[in-house]
Amino acid sequence: MKSEIITMAHGSGGMDSAALMQDVFSKHFGNDILDQLEDSAVIDTGAQHLAVSTDSFVVTPLFFPGGDIGRLAVCGTVNDLAMSGARPLYLSLGMIIEAGFPLAELQQIVASIAAAAAETNAKIVTGDTKVVPKGLADGIYINTAGVGVFDEGQAIPQGRLAAGDKIIISGEIAQHGMAVMAAREKLDFQPQLTSDAAPLYTLAAELLCAAPHTRLLRDPTRGGVATVLNEWAEVFGCSIVLNEDVVPVAPPIKAACELFGLDPLYVANEGKFLAAVPATEADEALAALKEHELGRKAAIIGEVREAKSGLAKVYVETAFGGSRIIDMLSGEQLPRIC
Amino acid sequence: MKSEIITMAHGSGGMDSAALMQDVFSKHFGNDILDQLEDSAVIDTGAQHLAVSTDSFVVTPLFFPGGDIGRLAVCGTVNDLAMSGARPLYLSLGMIIEAGFPLAELQQIVASIAAAAAETNAKIVTGDTKVVPKGLADGIYINTAGVGVFDEGQAIPQGRLAAGDKIIISGEIAQHGMAVMAAREKLDFQPQLTSDAAPLYTLAAELLCAAPHTRLLRDPTRGGVATVLNEWAEVFGCSIVLNEDVVPVAPPIKAACELFGLDPLYVANEGKFLAAVPATEADEALAALKEHELGRKAAIIGEVREAKSGLAKVYVETAFGGSRIIDMLSGEQLPRIC
Repeated sequence: MKSEIITMAHGSGGMDSAALMQDVFSKHFGNDILDQLEDSAVIDTGAQHLAVSTDSFVVTPLFFPGGDIGRLAVCGTVNDLAMSGARPLYLSLGMIIEAGFPLAELQQIVASIAAAAAETNAKIVTGDTKVVPKGLADGIYINTAGVGVFDEGQAIPQGRLAAGDKIIISGEIAQHGMAVMAAREKLDFQPQLTSDAAPLYTLAAELLCAAPHTRLLRDPTRGGVATVLNEWAEVFGCSIVLNEDVVPVAPPIKAACELFGLDPLYVANEGKFLAAVPATEADEALAALKEHELGRKAAIIGEVREAKSGLAKVYVETAFGGSRIIDMLSGEQLPRIC
Repeated sequence: MKSEIITMAHGSGGMDSAALMQDVFSKHFGNDILDQLEDSAVIDTGAQHLAVSTDSFVVTPLFFPGGDIGRLAVCGTVNDLAMSGARPLYLSLGMIIEAGFPLAELQQIVASIAAAAAETNAKIVTGDTKVVPKGLADGIYINTAGVGVFDEGQAIPQGRLAAGDKIIISGEIAQHGMAVMAAREKLDFQPQLTSDAAPLYTLAAELLCAAPHTRLLRDPTRGGVATVLNEWAEVFGCSIVLNEDVVPVAPPIKAACELFGLDPLYVANEGKFLAAVPATEADEALAALKEHELGRKAAIIGEVREAKSGLAKVYVETAFGGSRIIDMLSGEQLPRIC
């Protein structure tokens, strides 16, 4: 390809689009399905019941410690599939690129997408690229949609909550949001704050195997742990009591949150999930998570209770023996972290 | 919802996101799968072989005679599925909205998406909304990904070309690109130029039924008819001869193309397809198309030939008995028409 930057012609559907497809996308994603270069991919899922999910990514900056918009675009979507108990198989990739975007950065992002997809054994099978004039985007926006299958014998979350259920977090929280914030503000923390962006399917599968009556799984991205728990409490009409002391937060992340005046419970994660499991399976669930590289710091952080006087609420039991309500996020805390 | 415009908080994942979901998306798209409001949708396709496709839409202006970005976002993706012979079933919807975008326009676009999806019996089953700061998008960008199934007994395109095959266009060309261009330039043509944006699955199914040995189907969007034929000629190593006289172009579209100095063969369509069919089935194919509301103006416009002296090329036989090469589009002709 001659040009070192993306031009409007790369979005024309003509010769330059074809060159971009060949020199960038096919180079990194080459597989038997994508290589047919048809407008739609024909896939064999081996199953009739599928999970489908989509996410768009507008993170700034595009590159940050622990990842980039490409890694995020894969992890975000495959994790949504994994939370339903599905094994991610196929991804579509839609890119909106600002004219003038450096081709070298596009190559880097596409390589990162390919690497993250390979980590979770998912294939990029179809895609689309649009170019908008300079000033009408912020470098690059990416959409992925994913298709996953439910393997035979694989337990899936029951989709309900019951009083007594334990709430488990799969590891230390608030890493992604704080890493992006630090990179955006060009703050030089020591040690560096690193995003936790990672595909979670294998970790989720281990949990579902150890705790086959798992009630719910959800990755706490935008809005963080507090938002997911509030949604659960509201949808299922119960209360959730958190033990703030045992919510795992790495000390450098905790310090950075204090600096920014942020509560880690509301900060986005991209490589963690919350699980609600029956008390009888909680220990097995926790042990299974801790055996997995991505779950070493997993912890039981709370419990489901009957809603107090009819109110569905999330409470934190504080270090001082008191309690405070953890509300749904109101307004925007950290924009554009995914 | 209190605010009349989209704010960053609508992309927060918190309370305002939930309100947007309820007041805008669920209102128009409500179906049993989407209403579960999970991050991934579980679908029953009834088949293991699926078609998957994605497209992003960055058209300007957002509203134009005959459609809007919402209608386009459905048609573009379901038509890609239909061209593989698949019946569109499910769509995902990813929106990137510029802060300050009027809520009333979003409602209008979402209603248009719902209407277009209903026209082709497809369901919106999962979605995602991101908000970017004012100035970092152009109102709204939309991505859709689609899942389609191959019905039992439904013929599918063979994926090859042979000398003697006839090239059929399903109707008048260049409507979409010219309608968008006229709307963008605020030119008041009489009669008004109207986009052809339409879901093509039923038309494609009629054709495949009448001409079960159809070789190829493709919707000529960006780059137009000329680009699709060039890609076919190159991929299958043959020549394609067009009879320019019989390529259907409505007189007002022809006049507008002349005004802008554009060749209708390169102008985008969003409700037409090209079909390559064996000569023995061409008449049946044409008759089937003409019986369908969307195919009344269908025409056999060319023929596949052995490549001349090894060169894969598309020729037009002109009104004067001469011929000229119709090359692949080089550079960008009409940016952001989809």
